[in-house]
Amino acid sequence: MEIIGELINTSRKLISEAVKKKDGQYIRYIAKLQQESGATYIDVNCGTFMQAEVEIMKWLVDNVLKGCSLPLCIDSPNPLALDAGLGKSQNGRPMINSITGEDERWSAVLPLIKKYNSKIIALCIDNTGMPKTQEDRLRIAEYLVSRLTDEGIDIHDIYIDPLIKPISAGEKHGVEVLDAIEEIMAKYPGIHTVCGLTNISYSLPARKLLNRTFMIQTMARGMDSYILDPTDNEMRASLMASQTLMGQDRFSRKFIKGFRDGIYK
Amino acid sequence: MEIIGELINTSRKLISEAVKKKDGQYIRYIAKLQQESGATYIDVNCGTFMQAEVEIMKWLVDNVLKGCSLPLCIDSPNPLALDAGLGKSQNGRPMINSITGEDERWSAVLPLIKKYNSKIIALCIDNTGMPKTQEDRLRIAEYLVSRLTDEGIDIHDIYIDPLIKPISAGEKHGVEVLDAIEEIMAKYPGIHTVCGLTNISYSLPARKLLNRTFMIQTMARGMDSYILDPTDNEMRASLMASQTLMGQDRFSRKFIKGFRDGIYK
Repeated sequence: MEIIGELINTSRKLISEAVKKKDGQYIRYIAKLQQESGATYIDVNCGTFMQAEVEIMKWLVDNVLKGCSLPLCIDSPNPLALDAGLGKSQNGRPMINSITGEDERWSAVLPLIKKYNSKIIALCIDNTGMPKTQEDRLRIAEYLVSRLTDEGIDIHDIYIDPLIKPISAGEKHGVEVLDAIEEIMAKYPGIHTVCGLTNISYSLPARKLLNRTFMIQTMARGMDSYILDPTDNEMRASLMASQTLMGQDRFSRKFIKGFRDGIYK
Repeated sequence: MEIIGELINTSRKLISEAVKKKDGQYIRYIAKLQQESGATYIDVNCGTFMQAEVEIMKWLVDNVLKGCSLPLCIDSPNPLALDAGLGKSQNGRPMINSITGEDERWSAVLPLIKKYNSKIIALCIDNTGMPKTQEDRLRIAEYLVSRLTDEGIDIHDIYIDPLIKPISAGEKHGVEVLDAIEEIMAKYPGIHTVCGLTNISYSLPARKLLNRTFMIQTMARGMDSYILDPTDNEMRASLMASQTLMGQDRFSRKFIKGFRDGIYK
């Protein structure tokens, strides 16, 4: 299971301020904190900076690498920023967030996967847009997997993001994703599924409760990687309880340690 | 979804004391509190009293019925106590907790299901004992369903309890149950699955966290009824978040109301 720490993102006010002030110490601190909290990858996203994104990506990656020993998940809509971040990546194979089935995105990102021997998050969007039905979602996932494997990408390096739409926009949006996860995981042994957790709760109250509940639900249906805030203790508690109950924690050792460390009571 | 409130159980100290003191007011209060907290059935169990169980069952049922307007789930190893409780049941069709595939239990409980037109919790145990493997569990479930339906019991009135064994006794005990739920729900459309949540966390720390996490996991795999403490706010929050994300809460109305009522934040 990969836990991709989501905090180094300039859409977050404190990160944006640190970038503006060139406060590398804060970036290093947040990278380190995520590693200590159980992250296995560090997402780096400075998409809000548009024009300066390439330079800021390099600066962020430099600082993240000084702060922790984790591999990086380079996250950008801009292929130049991806290239810049991947070029500086260390600590093991990087991940790209993300490729889609849209022609322009596909042709920009595919060469980067090969150039950097990167793992790849493949988001269920294609030229027709976001999936409207369950069939859409599975059709796009199948299209992405077959194209990526045709290009020689190992199935074990593919992380399908089923695309999470808010439950407030449609009460079946959660169940549709759960069904898709199970179908994708069963159809492609060795593949991974991943998602960010915040979209599901958009515009509802008690968002953190909904986000961590959705994490537990998706894991129960086979999802094996998450983009989340590993420093949120309640999320972390849910994650550790969920992994233990899913049989991924021999003799419940990690769960008992988490209790002793005071993460939950 | 049936939420069977578990608090009226003489293995709980306060209930046992209320029984000894003939404090009917406390029993009525706990019945009412469970109804107000979202229970749809009230479990009544006084199995710890052995000799006096039949009389105490009658007294408990009388008081529960004065405290709330919910139907009852009569819960006893003793067929005479079941009969006594069922004989006084009101507020809709009662439920029996439980029948098993053991000959003695079967022949004692089956007539009571018919006599009282009761719904039935069928626990996955047979003459060979508790299920040791996943195949055991499914074999016993199939045996119970086929025998019950052969006897004319409607599939919609059957609640299969897959039998929860502690994760501390085997790290696959959770996953085995999750797989069994999905298989049973797919194989018998209209059937229900139910469980108590406390066994899963036996001998581990942070039991409430594990219990509510397992509730979310089992619901994500199709379980549709629970025996639990509905007055535990964190459990209730998980339950409401889970139902909303499973598409069982139109326009998230109940979830938003729960937030306004201060059940979670």
